[in-house]
Amino acid sequence: MQLRRADVLAGAIAILDEYGLGDLTMRRLATSLGVQPGALYWHFPNKQTLLAAITDEMLGAVSAPLVDAQWDARLEVLAHRIRDALLAHRDGAELASASYAARLATNDARATLVEVGTDAGLPTDEAEFAADTLLFYILGQTMDEQSRMQMDSHGALTEEASPLYDTTSGTARFEYGLGLFVDGVRSRLTESSSRPG
Amino acid sequence: MQLRRADVLAGAIAILDEYGLGDLTMRRLATSLGVQPGALYWHFPNKQTLLAAITDEMLGAVSAPLVDAQWDARLEVLAHRIRDALLAHRDGAELASASYAARLATNDARATLVEVGTDAGLPTDEAEFAADTLLFYILGQTMDEQSRMQMDSHGALTEEASPLYDTTSGTARFEYGLGLFVDGVRSRLTESSSRPG
Repeated sequence: MQLRRADVLAGAIAILDEYGLGDLTMRRLATSLGVQPGALYWHFPNKQTLLAAITDEMLGAVSAPLVDAQWDARLEVLAHRIRDALLAHRDGAELASASYAARLATNDARATLVEVGTDAGLPTDEAEFAADTLLFYILGQTMDEQSRMQMDSHGALTEEASPLYDTTSGTARFEYGLGLFVDGVRSRLTESSSRPG
Repeated sequence: MQLRRADVLAGAIAILDEYGLGDLTMRRLATSLGVQPGALYWHFPNKQTLLAAITDEMLGAVSAPLVDAQWDARLEVLAHRIRDALLAHRDGAELASASYAARLATNDARATLVEVGTDAGLPTDEAEFAADTLLFYILGQTMDEQSRMQMDSHGALTEEASPLYDTTSGTARFEYGLGLFVDGVRSRLTESSSRPG
């Protein structure tokens, strides 16, 4: 029976969710699919392209059509979609960070962020910088949340450091940071609209 | 000869800089210091506390006295100090992110950020959230920069994805993001000062 690309991808995501990014190797994936490692390379020339494909799959729904709303509301929806998508898979933020660093993932999520930024009135180069700022913030915060969940489940946190004792939720923390970012963008727009033409 | 804590720390940092975080194991460290692994545990009960100590050492200079300037200028100096400190060691951002997630590092850098935030006029809870936002952004962006440097030095990036071909420097990107963050904080201050008392 022929091994389809979608099967490889689904098998890889299953290993990721069950064992984590550190245990996702081409060899292990081949074993779990009952094929020789060579069969995987027909679909993915190396592990990096496989990881990028998982990232694309994971973030695919982020770019779904947005409601027709002001740029700031759209930006907030997008940011929450990205965070939720990363949290939905074990080590999701670490994986996306690595794929993004390799510039291999399709990265429609970033393109959508840039689009909302230019719609808001930012020049393209600033919209690109702003999209990266937001992405790096989301990755940094989500990686912290996921590391803490993993450490806690392995008993690697002291009792007082456990997420169970956090006085505020990751979501509340995230909403504050996202609000700061949106206010920062807004202040740039006010600046340029009040600049003498 | 007695093994001092400072020697263990220096040995660990040497391995980190030469081989990276993935190769920094207690066994390897013991071998490089010419001692039995047990000798290390006398100073550091486990690897996590060792990593936290390296993080403290790495970020120690961040909290050095700041010039007497407005809060926004002080925040910018602090943010640059943190980024520079992380960039000074291989995998510095990944290491700091893990130690921060474990809540084991002393984290004077975060405390200094919170202090500047409250000096600016933010309520303590907001200053804490704002400090986390900035830290997560710095960690996310610096991790991207360091991953890309590592991948490139291993020939793991395609030529067009190489940092050599980046049209803007990491520093320019960072200064834009930092500026957005500072503007976001400033807008919060304006809001609360114009709020009816």
